[in-house]
Amino acid sequence: MTTKSTTSRVVIVGAGFGGLSAAKALANTSADVMVIDRNNYHGFWPLLYQVATAGLEPDAIAHPTRAIFSQYANVNFRMATVTNIDFDQKLVLTDNAPVPYDYLILAAGSTTHFFGNDKLAAITYTLKDLSDAELLRQRVLCCFEQASHTPDPQQRRELMTFVLVGGGPTGVELAGALSELFRHVLRNDYPELDVNDARVILIEGLDSLLPVFPQNLGRDAQQRLEHMGVEVRLNVLVTDANERCVTLQDESTIAARTIVWTAGVRGAPLADALDVDKTKGSRVTVTSRLHLPERPAVFVIGDMANLGGYKGDTAHPMLAPVAIQQGEQAAANILAHMQGQPMSSFYYRDLGMMATIGRRAAVLTIAGVQMTGFLAWLGWLIIHLLQLVGFRNKLMVLTNWLYNYLTYDRAARIIVSRE
Amino acid sequence: MTTKSTTSRVVIVGAGFGGLSAAKALANTSADVMVIDRNNYHGFWPLLYQVATAGLEPDAIAHPTRAIFSQYANVNFRMATVTNIDFDQKLVLTDNAPVPYDYLILAAGSTTHFFGNDKLAAITYTLKDLSDAELLRQRVLCCFEQASHTPDPQQRRELMTFVLVGGGPTGVELAGALSELFRHVLRNDYPELDVNDARVILIEGLDSLLPVFPQNLGRDAQQRLEHMGVEVRLNVLVTDANERCVTLQDESTIAARTIVWTAGVRGAPLADALDVDKTKGSRVTVTSRLHLPERPAVFVIGDMANLGGYKGDTAHPMLAPVAIQQGEQAAANILAHMQGQPMSSFYYRDLGMMATIGRRAAVLTIAGVQMTGFLAWLGWLIIHLLQLVGFRNKLMVLTNWLYNYLTYDRAARIIVSRE
Repeated sequence: MTTKSTTSRVVIVGAGFGGLSAAKALANTSADVMVIDRNNYHGFWPLLYQVATAGLEPDAIAHPTRAIFSQYANVNFRMATVTNIDFDQKLVLTDNAPVPYDYLILAAGSTTHFFGNDKLAAITYTLKDLSDAELLRQRVLCCFEQASHTPDPQQRRELMTFVLVGGGPTGVELAGALSELFRHVLRNDYPELDVNDARVILIEGLDSLLPVFPQNLGRDAQQRLEHMGVEVRLNVLVTDANERCVTLQDESTIAARTIVWTAGVRGAPLADALDVDKTKGSRVTVTSRLHLPERPAVFVIGDMANLGGYKGDTAHPMLAPVAIQQGEQAAANILAHMQGQPMSSFYYRDLGMMATIGRRAAVLTIAGVQMTGFLAWLGWLIIHLLQLVGFRNKLMVLTNWLYNYLTYDRAARIIVSRE
Repeated sequence: MTTKSTTSRVVIVGAGFGGLSAAKALANTSADVMVIDRNNYHGFWPLLYQVATAGLEPDAIAHPTRAIFSQYANVNFRMATVTNIDFDQKLVLTDNAPVPYDYLILAAGSTTHFFGNDKLAAITYTLKDLSDAELLRQRVLCCFEQASHTPDPQQRRELMTFVLVGGGPTGVELAGALSELFRHVLRNDYPELDVNDARVILIEGLDSLLPVFPQNLGRDAQQRLEHMGVEVRLNVLVTDANERCVTLQDESTIAARTIVWTAGVRGAPLADALDVDKTKGSRVTVTSRLHLPERPAVFVIGDMANLGGYKGDTAHPMLAPVAIQQGEQAAANILAHMQGQPMSSFYYRDLGMMATIGRRAAVLTIAGVQMTGFLAWLGWLIIHLLQLVGFRNKLMVLTNWLYNYLTYDRAARIIVSRE
């Protein structure tokens, strides 16, 4: 069997963890690679909550994609929004010119899932990209500014109450960081306010925080958060909300002007547009080799892919390590196919999970070992620093972390309004 | 004569160089001080062009005002937009509750002046605040992205042509920084583009760049910019513009998709609302003691104030050192008045002027000494670092400058779109 002499064009949709990993695995091969993303940067979303809580600026966790790919002669980048795929013509349809492909890797990630509740979708804040994080940061700061000149104590308390719906890693990390922002920074900024009026309420529908973690880690996280003043409510669902309050399943209400929704994630909108088999959560069903059942040249990876076989027969979790490993596997399978070799099935090497709670506090599980507290926090810091793309982002994040840690400050608490 | 026993309330409108300097001069005195600004930060505008050219992120040059004032027990802050002053009732009218004053310092700064040309106002980019800088940065990056997949060479060149109108410090510094961004960074990012197509054209109506500087410094700046590929056009005015071209006084046109207007500055919109004597450029006429002629309790300082006596009888220039010194003088005069002492006249201690052009190149004049090139650049760096408010901003700017200088990189080249 001979190697094809013509170059195959591989198009990768999405420059997140999955797309980046696939592109790197295809760098300096005979493939002609084009990565398409609606943003011009790769976002390191595990630190997004720190942008929302004024600990980091966007550029610290965003790396320009062109700076990454300009190192590889065979990888190009195009900033565009992909609207659909024409599988028969082998065309990626975008808001601009269509892009032809021989092989396709769909790695468009995920978006917030409101389970059909449009009212919640319209009213709540989310935390899925830089624009969300900046909006939430501004919201928090504006609520304190408004509270500072609001004479009515009830209205003031409503402005200073923040309800986070969803006790997964995002909700837990955001709750801890908000609590620290209030208690260490805004307490000094607003001498006219009683910061004890500021409440962070974390609501989870299941009976434990961090439900996908081992249960004692969820309990540890809860204790630490409560120690920091966060109110944790388990076993309760949010059914309704308006500008001034949240309604729970038991018909009780919480008066709050800001609700953050981190309770659900679904496949990217692109998945909805595709005429393929998918789950209710818009994750596209793939074979064990990560391609569409009838189309061996079209791969779907990461949050967007529905692949069973994780801990029995559940779908793989929406985690960065899954996306990264699937990106490598999809790239390997494409290279194999180009050379007439058989593809391999994907097996996930579980690298564990972790969540940070605050200063010197985190929970993590790696290779069966569970850790909490200071050591877990140190592990969390080091792993995240190492994972950040590029020397400059590592430098900026480390500088900011050192500064924030030593001074208890969060310097990025500026409100940049745009007309 | 005895000191009054009741506390006088001093309201300062604006937390720029002038307002900040006045507030600090009044800190820890018997005055009850309230600073009002529409933003929650003090912006260090001399470095704004570096935010626009992706060298710095906003938080590096913005310092939260509450962090500054929380150090002083007698200084409070309110975020609000001041719409007018009721001089008879002694009330500052805002978009929120009115604020009463005994003494008032108006330091609301300046805004872009289009000399009545609404078409230019609608079509051009400006560089007066963080939101302007972020918009311009995104515009530059989006133009390159669009050019990268535009097949028509004429359209591509239009997208990559940037016309800057106004050869003052802002125009000169922006021209140099844009040229470096194109030649050192975007050249690598866009291998599909010929970066020699990218043009920066700097237009000045007078016969020299930096017209308020000594003339040989303007000539030096021009030579250095031209050496970096910037096209400088002197003695010509822009008369019209549309989405695709700029029309000059001599009826010639330049095909360009982006025009930046730095050719005029006028007093803040608040000045227009006030029923007081002012210049065509909305600068409010004050006495030599910096207060309104008929109202000794109302001071106007900085860009907003019209005070003659600079180098003969011209108005004082719109420079940070003028605002800072006037803030100190206004505060001193208020304290004197509170104690029944006479006020003093303002005299400007001229600290010189400077503008940076690019790597290792600047022009400056201090105390009659003129410098150009590397030494001037070093002086510029040191003076700006020292002037930045707060340790953290100094640290961030220094870290970024070192990184940018050593790597020729501009890492903040990310486009954060907002819905």
